[in-house]
Amino acid sequence: MAKRITIKDVAEETGLSIAAVSYVLNDKEGVRPETREMVLDAVQRLGYVPNYTARGLASHRSRLIGICSPQTEPGSKLMFDNPFYSKLFSSIEYECRIEGYHVIVSGTDADESFLKLAQQRSLDGMIIVGSYSKEFYSDLKKANMPVVLIDTYQNPERFHEVKIDDRRGGYLATKYLIDRGHKDIAFISGALREQGVTQLRFDGYRLALQESGIAYRKELVVPGVVSFQSGVECAGKVLEQASGITAMFCTADIIAMGAMKKVLSMGLNVPQDISIMGFDNLNISEYTSPSITTVGQDIELKGKLAVEIILDEIENRIQEPRCIELPVQIIERESTRRL
Amino acid sequence: MAKRITIKDVAEETGLSIAAVSYVLNDKEGVRPETREMVLDAVQRLGYVPNYTARGLASHRSRLIGICSPQTEPGSKLMFDNPFYSKLFSSIEYECRIEGYHVIVSGTDADESFLKLAQQRSLDGMIIVGSYSKEFYSDLKKANMPVVLIDTYQNPERFHEVKIDDRRGGYLATKYLIDRGHKDIAFISGALREQGVTQLRFDGYRLALQESGIAYRKELVVPGVVSFQSGVECAGKVLEQASGITAMFCTADIIAMGAMKKVLSMGLNVPQDISIMGFDNLNISEYTSPSITTVGQDIELKGKLAVEIILDEIENRIQEPRCIELPVQIIERESTRRL
Repeated sequence: MAKRITIKDVAEETGLSIAAVSYVLNDKEGVRPETREMVLDAVQRLGYVPNYTARGLASHRSRLIGICSPQTEPGSKLMFDNPFYSKLFSSIEYECRIEGYHVIVSGTDADESFLKLAQQRSLDGMIIVGSYSKEFYSDLKKANMPVVLIDTYQNPERFHEVKIDDRRGGYLATKYLIDRGHKDIAFISGALREQGVTQLRFDGYRLALQESGIAYRKELVVPGVVSFQSGVECAGKVLEQASGITAMFCTADIIAMGAMKKVLSMGLNVPQDISIMGFDNLNISEYTSPSITTVGQDIELKGKLAVEIILDEIENRIQEPRCIELPVQIIERESTRRL
Repeated sequence: MAKRITIKDVAEETGLSIAAVSYVLNDKEGVRPETREMVLDAVQRLGYVPNYTARGLASHRSRLIGICSPQTEPGSKLMFDNPFYSKLFSSIEYECRIEGYHVIVSGTDADESFLKLAQQRSLDGMIIVGSYSKEFYSDLKKANMPVVLIDTYQNPERFHEVKIDDRRGGYLATKYLIDRGHKDIAFISGALREQGVTQLRFDGYRLALQESGIAYRKELVVPGVVSFQSGVECAGKVLEQASGITAMFCTADIIAMGAMKKVLSMGLNVPQDISIMGFDNLNISEYTSPSITTVGQDIELKGKLAVEIILDEIENRIQEPRCIELPVQIIERESTRRL
């Protein structure tokens, strides 16, 4: 390997001590302007790049942020089948990069392995997507590092939070369909977990029905997992077990795509026979024919705010836990119609 | 933060020297079995986790692999709009993780910034996706670290390569359509760059036409970029500028989705009026209605092999550059028909 230029080379080049060069490079106060200029000149001339591994040990800063992301199955690959995660990750990576941080994404085998990663890599902070066990959060607290949770209502340790108004999202979607004459609205979702986002969307669904005096029919509710295949299966199941369905509210666009595929494959039309409503406003909800009416959330902003908060804590600009709830709105497309 | 357990604590607990503990932890030879057992017992009892930052400095190994991935625009976000990249990345992350490595993904502002990342983070190796400038590769060579290139025919420095047989992919796709009676086959693609994969797929397209004695029509070829929106635009353009088109070969599924959206929105039917052929076999090519006939490549295997090769070099199991070319095959779905 070509010889790496070190801080020692910069010191030799300038005739200054290593400590003096280090002062300049770490933006310490009390350095004379001409000294600073001399060092920065030498840095440029020699092509010196600070080594974060060495710097991390000295400053206790690694400039690395970890992202903990759910997996399809334990010990398996990252959940990138749902483009929601790739969009969120892409936003986090970008916001970190422009602030001089890098990102390590890792699937978590068990709750423990991510904490191990945090220690091994001396992460400056962690962004945790989704809901985990209570023990996971208390272990996280013990690690005593900046943490931002995205999309969970499970926060016993009062970490920072960024989420959307999921109950309102579920309410708006259902109300939109009711306002267009639908009464028999299937609810197709991921797992209904206490303090998960799906439960809240379900609460919104029930609230909208109740407000409009529409009786809740249990056989219209089919929870599965958040995937295309589950959308296919749940749509088939609900059409088999319940009669009179004119609309389906799917709690994720990827589920809505599966439901639509199933409905079309049965020779039914969307939206003429069945209206389909998604959630997330992924790019792919525009790509299908018909395109999918959905509950829009700003996934990029979610990632951006999570990074802002975590860097604010790392760089000591905030002390108190912050909780940001982003608004949602209906994005009207082609998969729904007025009855 | 809870006090971190260090190698010093393990030494104190066992009554051994730090050097002796380090010998055991680094799997050095000549350690007595009872010493090894004593150390490993203490490690487990105390919950000691090695710090890669500190170890990296001592061993010159960071156990970090960098992925260099193209972006939509310079200085912009990662190109995750195309699920090809998330699938590939997910596979690389998984294969690294089970081997005890972690992955840093970073967009590259300019050619230079990724090399800077490699130095800053003391990366053990880099996996480079796509084609870059000649200078980029020669700079990479100077960095003298294990490198695997994915999907490029530009390899002046003889790095390891993993790719597919792109020319054959283009040939098979076109031949498949010709065998079903199509003669006026539009070619819609990303940028036709010398030594990029698209150029090879184009060569395969021309070869299949030539073999079948079908005259090449320049107005049927519309290169754009690899995106849904470009698929929409290029399909519109080719239908406007050329007559008699019965099929479109799109060099990426994401482009095929755009082309299909455009064709359907014009009131034409797929495949009754226009057959559409994609490339990549992304999950989403199954999600649309009709689902998309495509050239299948094993994206997960591509990632897995790239990781295998880079770890083989890092861990000194290979010396010579390896070049792996994976096979492709037609995946028949609903978007194509016999004329």
